[in-house]
Amino acid sequence: MLTKAPRGTRDILPEQINKWVYVENKFRDICSRFGFEEIRTPMFEHTELFKRGVGETTDVVEKQMYSFDDNGGRNITLKAEGTAPVARAYVENKLYANPQPVKLFYITPCFRYERPQAGRLRQFHQFGVEIFGTTNPLADAEVIGVAVNLFDELGLENLEVRINSVGCPNCRAAYRKKLKEYLRDKLEILCDTCKGRYDRNPMRILDCKSEICQASVKEAPRMMDYLCDSCVQDFDALKKYLTAMEIEFIVDPDIVRGLDYYTKTAFEIVSSEIGAQGTVCGGGRYDQLVEEIGGPPTTGVGFGLGIERLLLSLEKNETVMEEMHSTDVFIAFLGEESENIAVKLLKDLRYKGIKGQMDLAGRTLKSQFKSADRLNAFFTVVIGEDELKENSVMLKDMESSEQEKVEISKVIEKIESRLK
Amino acid sequence: MLTKAPRGTRDILPEQINKWVYVENKFRDICSRFGFEEIRTPMFEHTELFKRGVGETTDVVEKQMYSFDDNGGRNITLKAEGTAPVARAYVENKLYANPQPVKLFYITPCFRYERPQAGRLRQFHQFGVEIFGTTNPLADAEVIGVAVNLFDELGLENLEVRINSVGCPNCRAAYRKKLKEYLRDKLEILCDTCKGRYDRNPMRILDCKSEICQASVKEAPRMMDYLCDSCVQDFDALKKYLTAMEIEFIVDPDIVRGLDYYTKTAFEIVSSEIGAQGTVCGGGRYDQLVEEIGGPPTTGVGFGLGIERLLLSLEKNETVMEEMHSTDVFIAFLGEESENIAVKLLKDLRYKGIKGQMDLAGRTLKSQFKSADRLNAFFTVVIGEDELKENSVMLKDMESSEQEKVEISKVIEKIESRLK
Repeated sequence: MLTKAPRGTRDILPEQINKWVYVENKFRDICSRFGFEEIRTPMFEHTELFKRGVGETTDVVEKQMYSFDDNGGRNITLKAEGTAPVARAYVENKLYANPQPVKLFYITPCFRYERPQAGRLRQFHQFGVEIFGTTNPLADAEVIGVAVNLFDELGLENLEVRINSVGCPNCRAAYRKKLKEYLRDKLEILCDTCKGRYDRNPMRILDCKSEICQASVKEAPRMMDYLCDSCVQDFDALKKYLTAMEIEFIVDPDIVRGLDYYTKTAFEIVSSEIGAQGTVCGGGRYDQLVEEIGGPPTTGVGFGLGIERLLLSLEKNETVMEEMHSTDVFIAFLGEESENIAVKLLKDLRYKGIKGQMDLAGRTLKSQFKSADRLNAFFTVVIGEDELKENSVMLKDMESSEQEKVEISKVIEKIESRLK
Repeated sequence: MLTKAPRGTRDILPEQINKWVYVENKFRDICSRFGFEEIRTPMFEHTELFKRGVGETTDVVEKQMYSFDDNGGRNITLKAEGTAPVARAYVENKLYANPQPVKLFYITPCFRYERPQAGRLRQFHQFGVEIFGTTNPLADAEVIGVAVNLFDELGLENLEVRINSVGCPNCRAAYRKKLKEYLRDKLEILCDTCKGRYDRNPMRILDCKSEICQASVKEAPRMMDYLCDSCVQDFDALKKYLTAMEIEFIVDPDIVRGLDYYTKTAFEIVSSEIGAQGTVCGGGRYDQLVEEIGGPPTTGVGFGLGIERLLLSLEKNETVMEEMHSTDVFIAFLGEESENIAVKLLKDLRYKGIKGQMDLAGRTLKSQFKSADRLNAFFTVVIGEDELKENSVMLKDMESSEQEKVEISKVIEKIESRLK
């Protein structure tokens, strides 16, 4: 026992380290292009945080936490997932007082007591991003965009982006009632855990891994058919943004996600290259989480991505490290048509390795310029209705304040050559 | 409580992250120049590992560990320090079967239940290096060299390298007897912990933080005066190597270090810039550790360096990230005079940002060439007796196999220009 790492944990040896460092740097680089900043939270939290933040009826909280009393009698739990701690840090450190949205990323070990198997360890590692403080579905699309960009640059193929909406407290009440009606005569055959969930949180039953439960919910009503107007609108907007970003997706009404805090957007990115355990990235919107753990009402959206599973699905890696910069380009826009152009342009810029940002909070053009200043961007691209009529944008050098009209098709080339 | 990180832990926020990433990259870069490779071990280990590896009578094991039973009834402990887990990994993964020495570095959180204060947290973070599988005191000097190089490049001034020898099992028995004789009539006034240590491990008493114990051992005999021939020889060699590396040091017979596993070299690097808690780096040789935890007899030497304390002692930081390469230069030598020249040259190369290595295991010249091949060095510098008479070395391009005689004073310039 002395010379064995605890079951379900393993060492990362020098011969394996390069691929870890490579994907970490790639993730950092892409996050930075997308305007996310790194945060690190402690390896353990008060157990109450996960109970409240993740949900008492989830598998994670019910079965898988490493919880114990410290020498001072505090009940603490090793980080069971990444989002609740980051939300706690957002509240404790008053990041809600900063300009919103706050875009954070993390690279962290997580700990769950599960039966170890290929790609699933008791200490595993996650990449994650979170955007706090905006309800704009473009934030949801950006979150998905980070993951897709990462997979693209890592050369991971045969991926499918699956999206769903799991509704909000408004529309969920009616759905919950329908679901319970449907499940009533199946209650006896469900697993013991799900019997307990029936009253407290019946949606968790849709996500149970027991075969009998999975079979029982096959024909159950789906949230997608009970969405309120606001949820339908946001889901349509998400699809529009993804399309503008040239991200292919399918709508999959079966996606629930295992944690309680999701609202509206839920998504998974599935690889056909790693067998049954195909989900390489999952995430969604959690508009109740921050308030639930004691912070001011604050919406959020993010994803978590298992690094072990990512590495399993990559065949070969090279060690490369690249420089980190601040924001290269801020894209300001006015009007809906301009917004679509901006999203597409931003996506293209980011794929070229350029760090770009745009507003996610519906700000006025003037406020967008302030953001560009705050982010210390080298360039601002201004997409306005007049220029658009001529298929052009304004490109402003933020240092000299000089600006020029540039054809849209030439703007990336122009920025690239001037950033050199 | 929900919105507070557990006492003694804290978040690293985006506004603080750059200096962390900066020192981490600097450390990685310097480690890589020195030929160390990264290893990562799990956040927890079987408790027994720390009891055996660190020592039952140490403060860490007696008072400060985060130990608990997991859901399967295993007693596990959050990583209390970095060396025992790396030694465990060395054994479990049979790294002793690789060419020796094995040079490893790590960047890791550690966990100790202590009263939180400035620069001392319950979750803190460490840089560390370990060299396994050589008794050569040059390894000890290299370990110290990594730390000194790091501090130099970070611009940390007013540092003092303090070295000591804490002996080996051969010479410690006699010393232990002397120490117990000295302590016998002071036993009653010692703290309770030290009373218990008197029979089991009296050297720990020298390291007790209680004022009364510290006062009681002020005039105690020092290990330094009881070293056996082998320990004296190795200590003299260490001083020679440090001098060749132009590292100033003072011999401080009071250095014991808090962990049981140290033998021979013990060292601390002390900063006068951070007040009473001035030790920014501590380490030494631990020739019994690997065998103690159940591995084959294997010597080792390393250091641990608290990142929080390092950051406290740095005034300003810039974010810079640099590329990582493999070994640039291997220095092969024949004879003692050549060795001194090699050590000095290697130090100068590394200060120039060049990744250099030399043999630490007393290998023949032929075996040294094999090492240079294995490390895939761009150049090998050969320092032989004949060339030395002309103040020259041979510089061999490992790709073309061409070699030329170069004046020692010109060799760095030559390598630098050819690496461009």
